Amino acid sequence: MTFVRNSWYVAGWSHAVPRTLTPIRIMDEDIVLYRTEAGDPVALEDQCPHKRLPLSMGRLKGDTVECGYHGMTFGANGRCVRIPGQNNLPASATVHHYPTHEAGGIVWIWMGDPALANISQVFDLPQLHHPGWAPHFGDGLYIEANYVHLADNLCDPAHVAYVHPTTLGNPESAGVPVEVERNGRTVVTSRWIRDAPPIGFFKAFGNFKGNVDRWHYYYFHAPSTAVIDFGSTDAALKAGEDERHLGVRLFAVHFLTPVSETEAIDHWMHVRNIGIDDETMGDRMNEQFRIAFDEDKVILEAIQRREAKPRSRQPVRLTIDKGPNFLKKIITEMADRERPDKAATE
Amino acid sequence: MTFVRNSWYVAGWSHAVPRTLTPIRIMDEDIVLYRTEAGDPVALEDQCPHKRLPLSMGRLKGDTVECGYHGMTFGANGRCVRIPGQNNLPASATVHHYPTHEAGGIVWIWMGDPALANISQVFDLPQLHHPGWAPHFGDGLYIEANYVHLADNLCDPAHVAYVHPTTLGNPESAGVPVEVERNGRTVVTSRWIRDAPPIGFFKAFGNFKGNVDRWHYYYFHAPSTAVIDFGSTDAALKAGEDERHLGVRLFAVHFLTPVSETEAIDHWMHVRNIGIDDETMGDRMNEQFRIAFDEDKVILEAIQRREAKPRSRQPVRLTIDKGPNFLKKIITEMADRERPDKAATE
Amino acid sequence: MTFVRNSWYVAGWSHAVPRTLTPIRIMDEDIVLYRTEAGDPVALEDQCPHKRLPLSMGRLKGDTVECGYHGMTFGANGRCVRIPGQNNLPASATVHHYPTHEAGGIVWIWMGDPALANISQVFDLPQLHHPGWAPHFGDGLYIEANYVHLADNLCDPAHVAYVHPTTLGNPESAGVPVEVERNGRTVVTSRWIRDAPPIGFFKAFGNFKGNVDRWHYYYFHAPSTAVIDFGSTDAALKAGEDERHLGVRLFAVHFLTPVSETEAIDHWMHVRNIGIDDETMGDRMNEQFRIAFDEDKVILEAIQRREAKPRSRQPVRLTIDKGPNFLKKIITEMADRERPDKAATE
Repeated sequence: MTFVRNSWYVAGWSHAVPRTLTPIRIMDEDIVLYRTEAGDPVALEDQCPHKRLPLSMGRLKGDTVECGYHGMTFGANGRCVRIPGQNNLPASATVHHYPTHEAGGIVWIWMGDPALANISQVFDLPQLHHPGWAPHFGDGLYIEANYVHLADNLCDPAHVAYVHPTTLGNPESAGVPVEVERNGRTVVTSRWIRDAPPIGFFKAFGNFKGNVDRWHYYYFHAPSTAVIDFGSTDAALKAGEDERHLGVRLFAVHFLTPVSETEAIDHWMHVRNIGIDDETMGDRMNEQFRIAFDEDKVILEAIQRREAKPRSRQPVRLTIDKGPNFLKKIITEMADRERPDKAATE
Repeated sequence: MTFVRNSWYVAGWSHAVPRTLTPIRIMDEDIVLYRTEAGDPVALEDQCPHKRLPLSMGRLKGDTVECGYHGMTFGANGRCVRIPGQNNLPASATVHHYPTHEAGGIVWIWMGDPALANISQVFDLPQLHHPGWAPHFGDGLYIEANYVHLADNLCDPAHVAYVHPTTLGNPESAGVPVEVERNGRTVVTSRWIRDAPPIGFFKAFGNFKGNVDRWHYYYFHAPSTAVIDFGSTDAALKAGEDERHLGVRLFAVHFLTPVSETEAIDHWMHVRNIGIDDETMGDRMNEQFRIAFDEDKVILEAIQRREAKPRSRQPVRLTIDKGPNFLKKIITEMADRERPDKAATE
Repeated sequence: MTFVRNSWYVAGWSHAVPRTLTPIRIMDEDIVLYRTEAGDPVALEDQCPHKRLPLSMGRLKGDTVECGYHGMTFGANGRCVRIPGQNNLPASATVHHYPTHEAGGIVWIWMGDPALANISQVFDLPQLHHPGWAPHFGDGLYIEANYVHLADNLCDPAHVAYVHPTTLGNPESAGVPVEVERNGRTVVTSRWIRDAPPIGFFKAFGNFKGNVDRWHYYYFHAPSTAVIDFGSTDAALKAGEDERHLGVRLFAVHFLTPVSETEAIDHWMHVRNIGIDDETMGDRMNEQFRIAFDEDKVILEAIQRREAKPRSRQPVRLTIDKGPNFLKKIITEMADRERPDKAATE
């Protein structure tokens, strides 16, 4: 499997990054998160270079972290500023400092070469800060599966009829073909289900009287961000692709953070064009999403458990795999580019 | 350790195979069991060939199984009959179909080459369907030990005095020698304990006034079936080997199903020649068996745990090992015959 | 890591070695402890040489142990004395017998070559049986860490300010240098903190009005015994190194028993020169020690967990590592001497 290091990942929603030492794990690396007295998020290697005690088991003193075993103290840039009992501070007495960036209620972390960290590359969606749209944060859903399985799922509109039959899918979509497009590092998979009963979600929120036209556009920006544009219009409208704004429309956004080869966190949120002053609608929609994403979690964890056992034969390839296969190719290319020696021999 | 594939194994008692998707594991293979609308048991590889989701997490539709991720659907013979979103069904879109056979309240499964499955080889014991005998089903006892440890235990009358002192053994049998005979794939170990107080089991069910003659004949049919003919007669009768029908006589039957290298299920039942119209006697006898077999479970699991650590020296060989050693030789030969290349080099 | 076999280890406090079969584990070896009818402690390999069942799952009969599977019986010297069903006792039918020695409330065990076991080498501290001193037993603290991590901690006075801020340390000691001396197989690390407020422990027990002089002498006798001489005197006394008897003085004694590469037991006790007729003082002091040693446990287990992951770079070496480094060198030398072939090639 393939971690892409030179990319921004969600370390946590802003409200989940407190002014206390908070251990997290990304790409199998232990990281301690905290805020300075000024409120800036800091991410350091969570391991004292002396005896390897997690620094998160120590004490936050001002903007510095004191190890809980012998008091070695590190500044917010990762450099040792104090060793009790000796005056010289060896040059090797540092811990890795991860670049961070906070915007729009999200703390981002850069896992790659710090020299390449560029905040202009942090993901943004115009609707997240646009009048007429209401963003609403969801959870950080922990899933015991490699993030690529999550990514695969998020390039795959075909699963909703089977995995989410009461919320995001219904039988009417079962056989509708999926359109696939590749655009640089983005894979777009989409389909329209025309003139069919609304799915559970739009029964709850759309107030539709009869059949609807429903669309799903899955934009996956490799390696780790998915935006799902979905919604419904009254079928009588015969809305065109460009008339989605006439309907009830949402963007469900997923930020995938690889925790280890077999674990990931899916930070999900949504932004919607209805009920934008109704905070309770955001909560009620999230309840629906929570049901649906827990259904994905069950599937993805079962698939991951099966990987503990070697495959005895090649997988069957289906037409609906086109989008996921594009995506996996892009992720593999990105990872290989970061490790040129490895790519050459594998 | 050695799995013998070309053999019938108990998949479950009939009453434990419902018309719903039921996951089981045999020889480290995941299998989904269900019944067709006509009631026939079906056993399929429990893994979709697309993304490896267990089919048992999907839906039973008529006689077919629909995968819970993308709706691929398989018939009771293992062949794919539907792929939502495409018309062609690739030849590789199949799951393994295991032959099954149901008889006398037991669902059997064939783990080897389907071409060799022959229902005439399914185990049968005449007393199971004979007037004058009452069969009574017991449990499917899960034991965290390789099935060969269970088989060893079931060729070994010598352990009952130490493992089952209150139910199936007593001190009088401690030093009585064991007779051993090999008959093709069957090992028979036996002994008579003459003119001794009855064991706990026959105190409870035999109504004996004084000493008894007690016999144990362990028939182990390799690789996985044990029949234990045991009983007691009044010692005054001085019964000969052929006069066992004069006493209280039972056959305890054990069907061993290997789950993995370190797990097995012991499906056990009994058939008796007393109280044949008294259903409560069957239940009361099973209570005694349950105590005894749980005692075996504790021993066998302790031995299995020790195998995680390499042995530092050769085991001591005892006279009582003759039966178990025959049996292990037969099982090894059967397994080797199935893998001729492997047998030659090992 | 390195086990030193030719050494006496604490198998348990005397009161924890009953006349029943008691399984313990030392250096990854399973051992059954019991007492003979005369009360002598016995330590045998806890594994029947027949089927490897732990003997501790069997029965104690007089001074012998009967296996719970087939009744093989072993004397207190480890030799088989009975095999039910056969008369000859093979010479190989033995289990390892570990030399033991009981003194002063402690059962010691010798893990190495029995021919080298010499009870004159059992650890002793004169104060443990001297008028004017009160010994008091503590616990057998189980810690999921290699014993060398515990040993490291017990050559390291510098950690108390950070790990035990409310009991055995306070900020005043944070920067005070540590003296280190090596004496054969003993490492002595020590320091005096002069004219400072008393630590929590001496606030509770010393009845001091103002500042004190406080000393810590850590004597680590490789491979596994630590004696910590610590105490306080009124600072006005200006006590010299040789005048420690004028103050409140304790010896905290730790006997480390390696359980496996990742587990150890710390049997700890203390002896004190105050309140020697006040048994409740011993209990109250142990409550303080219990708080402190549980703090060590948390640190040491966190460090051990980190070792599951390879180190990505060399550890930073600090001045305070001098004592622990001496100690680890001594332990490595002792272990290598026991395995000359291995030492030559590593």
